[in-house]
Amino acid sequence: MSSPIPVTLLENSNGIGDCPGFKTAGVACDVRELKNKERLDLAMLVAEKPCPAAGVFTLNDLCAAPVRLCKEILSRSSNKVAGFVVNSGNANAATGEKGMADAKQMGAIAQLSSGLGQPFLICSTGRIGRKLPMQQIEEGIEHAAQQLADDAQSSLNAADAILTSDTRRKVATAQFTYEGKTVTVAGMAKGAGMIEPNMATMLAFLTTDVVTNGDQLKNVLTAAVNKTFNRISIDGDMSTNDTVLLLASGKSGVDPWDGPADLLFAFKEAVFKVCDQLAELIVGDGEKVTKLVELVVEGCPKVSDAEKVARAVGNSLLVKASWYGSDPNWGRVADAAGYARVGLKEELLDIHYDEIPALIKGIPQDENKAQWKEVVFKKRFRITVNLNQGDADYRLLTSDLSEAYVDFNKSE
Amino acid sequence: MSSPIPVTLLENSNGIGDCPGFKTAGVACDVRELKNKERLDLAMLVAEKPCPAAGVFTLNDLCAAPVRLCKEILSRSSNKVAGFVVNSGNANAATGEKGMADAKQMGAIAQLSSGLGQPFLICSTGRIGRKLPMQQIEEGIEHAAQQLADDAQSSLNAADAILTSDTRRKVATAQFTYEGKTVTVAGMAKGAGMIEPNMATMLAFLTTDVVTNGDQLKNVLTAAVNKTFNRISIDGDMSTNDTVLLLASGKSGVDPWDGPADLLFAFKEAVFKVCDQLAELIVGDGEKVTKLVELVVEGCPKVSDAEKVARAVGNSLLVKASWYGSDPNWGRVADAAGYARVGLKEELLDIHYDEIPALIKGIPQDENKAQWKEVVFKKRFRITVNLNQGDADYRLLTSDLSEAYVDFNKSE
Repeated sequence: MSSPIPVTLLENSNGIGDCPGFKTAGVACDVRELKNKERLDLAMLVAEKPCPAAGVFTLNDLCAAPVRLCKEILSRSSNKVAGFVVNSGNANAATGEKGMADAKQMGAIAQLSSGLGQPFLICSTGRIGRKLPMQQIEEGIEHAAQQLADDAQSSLNAADAILTSDTRRKVATAQFTYEGKTVTVAGMAKGAGMIEPNMATMLAFLTTDVVTNGDQLKNVLTAAVNKTFNRISIDGDMSTNDTVLLLASGKSGVDPWDGPADLLFAFKEAVFKVCDQLAELIVGDGEKVTKLVELVVEGCPKVSDAEKVARAVGNSLLVKASWYGSDPNWGRVADAAGYARVGLKEELLDIHYDEIPALIKGIPQDENKAQWKEVVFKKRFRITVNLNQGDADYRLLTSDLSEAYVDFNKSE
Repeated sequence: MSSPIPVTLLENSNGIGDCPGFKTAGVACDVRELKNKERLDLAMLVAEKPCPAAGVFTLNDLCAAPVRLCKEILSRSSNKVAGFVVNSGNANAATGEKGMADAKQMGAIAQLSSGLGQPFLICSTGRIGRKLPMQQIEEGIEHAAQQLADDAQSSLNAADAILTSDTRRKVATAQFTYEGKTVTVAGMAKGAGMIEPNMATMLAFLTTDVVTNGDQLKNVLTAAVNKTFNRISIDGDMSTNDTVLLLASGKSGVDPWDGPADLLFAFKEAVFKVCDQLAELIVGDGEKVTKLVELVVEGCPKVSDAEKVARAVGNSLLVKASWYGSDPNWGRVADAAGYARVGLKEELLDIHYDEIPALIKGIPQDENKAQWKEVVFKKRFRITVNLNQGDADYRLLTSDLSEAYVDFNKSE
């Protein structure tokens, strides 16, 4: 169902800086300690005035210091922030008390450099279990604070600075108009799922210019994340640092909670569209991915059952290897669906490749084999698994498993 | 704790035929329909007289016809059987009502060929979703019935006939002596976890000569399977056909339930040792496996927590790829342990590679890096993850993930 107020994704996004009310910067400070002063590795965003923010974080028990710090900042009653700082190249995870001290220090330096009193949200992505090179980081934050600007290049630099094993920059911007005013939701992200050797994390940062508060933002962001970032899977490995943040400058003067239902609907759709686009960009740029597969599991008694089936199929090594080989192997899909153990009944099971039936009520449709074999040769296709046992469904966007993935991830 | 009555694994096992009271055969009947009359693909075992039996089966919702048939036979009150028939090359899974009729037909032909009135247990392994070539199967069973013998070669033929993508025969035999009588437990198995393209299944068959009944056998077998076959994992894919059977001829005259506790203990240990040896052989012969890793998870509040952590680590693609690359990447181990979500506390977490500490109370032990790097270069090593939050533990034997695995499994 699309919004009565049309929400448009921009063809050429510049990322978070597309949204009025923020300044951004991306600088190089050699977080990786490779004597490389060229690679951008520290991004900063500062709001014109303290602004409400919300975050969604990894559920991993082993949660990096900056994630714990962000949660702490956002749990405070006011939860207004000055902006955020992100470094790539080091995750500041499994770094003990020193790691937390370093994350707090990053925030303190950002406050000092920017002259702002409100706290900064801090994110890190990269190698686990190594202390942050604080001298480089401090210089980087100071440098970024001097570079802050509201132009497109600064925003693109920020989007580049957060990348690790990504091969492409990931940005998206959505807009809609309400009573002559333009409302913007913009975002940038770095890759996840397929994780660089020793590297971790999916990170996404969204900005908007609506008038709101942290609790409202949190509700909208959580709903969007559950339908987008939480529905992509490349290798099933959840990182220690996964974070999605949303900050609101208020600059548009539009309050989605103070108007017709269509207005709030449009704002939710804009947040969803930006998250969805970034999630697609992440899976499409997964390490050594050659195919994207949209898994749709239908006909389950409960959504949680549909999700179990989708994750069992989407994370099966045998299934993923067969996609890589363009092998129309519905037997492995059925086998993985069966070991999800949600009470699947063979005699009710349907499997389709795009629109082509491969299994109907448990009976193989071998006469269609030539057609469904064509489907799996495509770069992107859909597999629908219908249990015919209820009305709940779940969609998971996933990928194949290539030899190159194993080679890429076999060592540091 | 070892048994006061010494239980010995034979150095040279001939498999199930090592146990008195049974005749065996392995024949070639071209189940794969490749006009290949050389490859052994049908095994048969017949007891001298109807004997008690027990089975442990896959938990997959999608359960092959022969598995359902075996469960049905063993659920009957007497649960005595004449023996079993196994074919490789076709799993008779996802074959609908015809599949069940074919499995029953296999049993009927075995009864007819052998002239025995009791039912035969039926197992199949191989390709999913293809109907059994019943003409070949029928000829094979008739031929096997003629070949039945109690010599070593027949038993080894049976062990060869059940293999699919295995590169080696898998047999084991344990014995002990009680009051001058020798008690034997013997077994054969075919590979699991790593599954041949489109092929499924771990199968194991055990024979013993104790005097017992089906319920007693079931208890002993279930306990042994839980500590052995259920604790191996190669790719985390559970098949539609996994089956472990145990048949007892009574030929030794020894009833383990009618004697001192040490006697029953020795019998349980013999069953455990045969299962354990077969499980090790299966993992060691996993498709394209280059390393075996013994994962020991300790210090958990509950065994189910320890199992969750072990399976999260053991099935992580990133962890397995790093083992393949001999990369001492404890960060990925910690990350996977964290996303098992059992309430792991970073500041209590210890990780060892063999005896070498990599992480102690959440602090990386970088000074040991050269030593633990040596450990991961070995063909077999142990990783211990201690949560230090309780007394429960779990051991999982697993393997690495090689590029060759992906290549091998990418197509039919």
